[in-house]
Amino acid sequence: MDRSRLEAFSDGVFAVAITLLALNLTVAGPSHGHLLHQLRSGSWTFVAYLISFFMIGIVWVNHHVLVRGIAVVDRTLLFLNLVLLLFVVMIPFATATVADYLAFHGQQTPQALLQAHRDTQVAMMLYGTVFLGMSVGFAGIFEWTLHGERMYQRLPADKHWAARARFVGGGLVYVIAIVVALINAVAAFVIIALVAVYYIVERTPDAYKAAAPDSSADAGAPDGS
Amino acid sequence: MDRSRLEAFSDGVFAVAITLLALNLTVAGPSHGHLLHQLRSGSWTFVAYLISFFMIGIVWVNHHVLVRGIAVVDRTLLFLNLVLLLFVVMIPFATATVADYLAFHGQQTPQALLQAHRDTQVAMMLYGTVFLGMSVGFAGIFEWTLHGERMYQRLPADKHWAARARFVGGGLVYVIAIVVALINAVAAFVIIALVAVYYIVERTPDAYKAAAPDSSADAGAPDGS
Amino acid sequence: MDRSRLEAFSDGVFAVAITLLALNLTVAGPSHGHLLHQLRSGSWTFVAYLISFFMIGIVWVNHHVLVRGIAVVDRTLLFLNLVLLLFVVMIPFATATVADYLAFHGQQTPQALLQAHRDTQVAMMLYGTVFLGMSVGFAGIFEWTLHGERMYQRLPADKHWAARARFVGGGLVYVIAIVVALINAVAAFVIIALVAVYYIVERTPDAYKAAAPDSSADAGAPDGS
Amino acid sequence: MDRSRLEAFSDGVFAVAITLLALNLTVAGPSHGHLLHQLRSGSWTFVAYLISFFMIGIVWVNHHVLVRGIAVVDRTLLFLNLVLLLFVVMIPFATATVADYLAFHGQQTPQALLQAHRDTQVAMMLYGTVFLGMSVGFAGIFEWTLHGERMYQRLPADKHWAARARFVGGGLVYVIAIVVALINAVAAFVIIALVAVYYIVERTPDAYKAAAPDSSADAGAPDGS
Repeated sequence: MDRSRLEAFSDGVFAVAITLLALNLTVAGPSHGHLLHQLRSGSWTFVAYLISFFMIGIVWVNHHVLVRGIAVVDRTLLFLNLVLLLFVVMIPFATATVADYLAFHGQQTPQALLQAHRDTQVAMMLYGTVFLGMSVGFAGIFEWTLHGERMYQRLPADKHWAARARFVGGGLVYVIAIVVALINAVAAFVIIALVAVYYIVERTPDAYKAAAPDSSADAGAPDGS
Repeated sequence: MDRSRLEAFSDGVFAVAITLLALNLTVAGPSHGHLLHQLRSGSWTFVAYLISFFMIGIVWVNHHVLVRGIAVVDRTLLFLNLVLLLFVVMIPFATATVADYLAFHGQQTPQALLQAHRDTQVAMMLYGTVFLGMSVGFAGIFEWTLHGERMYQRLPADKHWAARARFVGGGLVYVIAIVVALINAVAAFVIIALVAVYYIVERTPDAYKAAAPDSSADAGAPDGS
Repeated sequence: MDRSRLEAFSDGVFAVAITLLALNLTVAGPSHGHLLHQLRSGSWTFVAYLISFFMIGIVWVNHHVLVRGIAVVDRTLLFLNLVLLLFVVMIPFATATVADYLAFHGQQTPQALLQAHRDTQVAMMLYGTVFLGMSVGFAGIFEWTLHGERMYQRLPADKHWAARARFVGGGLVYVIAIVVALINAVAAFVIIALVAVYYIVERTPDAYKAAAPDSSADAGAPDGS
Repeated sequence: MDRSRLEAFSDGVFAVAITLLALNLTVAGPSHGHLLHQLRSGSWTFVAYLISFFMIGIVWVNHHVLVRGIAVVDRTLLFLNLVLLLFVVMIPFATATVADYLAFHGQQTPQALLQAHRDTQVAMMLYGTVFLGMSVGFAGIFEWTLHGERMYQRLPADKHWAARARFVGGGLVYVIAIVVALINAVAAFVIIALVAVYYIVERTPDAYKAAAPDSSADAGAPDGS
């Protein structure tokens, strides 16, 4: 197994998952009220689409930054990569579920209202759990790269924690979001959205920057020199 | 991040989005009247499919022409590319919506007729807005290429505006189409279709032509010499 | 535009279209009668899936055999390729339609029976037309390769017709199938299936055989020497 | 036809099929009872998703290990590869069917209960049959590699059976699972799941291990030296 086909397969899965997200965008169509009203009541769906789209995009970027320095592909790596993709592929489902419950306003009795609140919290915990699972898969790949001669250039031991915070830190935030969802679903949603914003704004540490534009095998990616 | 994986991921998204377009093509099936009638009443769906298919195809071509000259991939470029893809992925949804409203003829009262007209205009504005967003994402990538040492060969300053008109000019047409949709939805549809026809017929300026068939890194793409 | 990205995009579209075919395979599920009965009544769907799957597979093979000898990619080629893909992407829709009508047995009156027959013929003509369109797109690419210095090695003029018969001959069979569908839908189905069988059994003329396993640019593909 | 495009197309199909699996994950949504109940009643769907996801992942790994040593791609190989993909693409359908029947608990009369049991067994046999078909396609590719000068380095004759057991042994287990499904559907499900677990835990025989990380043409893959 060489790295290029691992990348090709993963890219395919990322690309399909990110495109399937948009299948959640629908309107009921003619004879279901004004289209503008339909679009407005679908605004949570759009917000959820936006966040999930950039989350998948960010994971794809981080995946590539990490994987391109890998010199030896073994079965353990392939399995860890599958765990990551297992959760990536679940994002459209979790996104659709959370958007459905955030948008729902059909409750009329106090009991129904309370139940709708609780269901929205459950949906948000599901959403956070999928991202947490993705983060765990990613952390597994990252820890795997730290041992043996698996990278073209090993990350020095004193940089492990900085890189760990960068690649795996999101996982802690998802745990917080899941706990916050027990109190307020929308607050948890905002926390997850902030992870996306953070990764868009943040810059990769130099140690993981690409050395040359078209190098794929010879680039001395993660060394910090 | 090297350019090849940016291309692979983008190509995957383009390929999935262009194929998902065809999911809009359906017939109600047996026991819903003559199949020929069903196909005839689906003709707007087919026209919308045709236009959107070539629009995605054209953006894919332009994306490649622009991206292949890029020497340095940074996080800003990846983010701009995600913005472009965010709208590409929404095209099947916008196409389905516009086709549904163009094809709808169930109005019986004058008020319902007026509402159906307005909804079709809203659907067409949505359609134009998705293309406009795509165009903005593309413009972002284009402007990014003009600065610093990001391309293998920089585009001379005196050619910026010609290239800008070529790559970004469509955006202005989409603004016009959105405004025209306020008056007449079908006229806006024709304008968007003409953009597709223009890009199919037009020839890439020499400056952006490929220099050699299989070169990917060494090709002196955008210099005009 | 270099050839590799044309191939990558086309491969993506072929792969998505061939996989979407399987979305037609469904059963009504529990409480809709015995599963075995459901599967048996879906046998036309399975046959249609099988034929369309191998048709897409064959077009993918032929596409690759033809494209790998191309030295210069221009806008005309990209447009012709999009025409080919436009019809490839419609195959899941045409397959679903033809399977629905072949499987339908709900007619009770003679008039309804006659109508069901006619609708099945229309569905089969649609199916044939999609393959015909695909064939026309393919023929366009083939004719394009015959002119100028577009191939690494030009096909000698005396071999044009043999190659044309091989690559484009299917188109004539689809015309026949469409005409036959006016008389008998199942007979037309058999004719289209025979095209698939023919291309699976048939061997590529030596002139188009690959010269070396991993060569992509240097292979003297279509020369006949 | 060179090997790289065979891999690219196959990777695309694997990636789309593995992502489409997640389309089976859905909840009925608001006003269909507590979300937690809905998620709990979807647990069979999730288990089936998990098993099928890793099965496709494993087949992708094995496909790559086998294909990367192939030196000469001919039409027979392409056809055998299409047979493999034909069944890979059917996995989402078989997974959805088996999950639907495992999860169904609406039977009220003894007859209905008996029928539901039988239908679940039929669904499980369908599930096993799809994997068996995939295994047959894989076995076809494997046997093809043993003859002539098709691999960079031929597998010595005395290692044929060990490799055969590794690559094709799963097929025998699927036959057992299909027979067991006649007695107990869940037991058959466990057997199929164990195949997935086995392949995740198992290590590739040295003979098929990659020799160098980025070699694609020169790697002495299957020789055992």
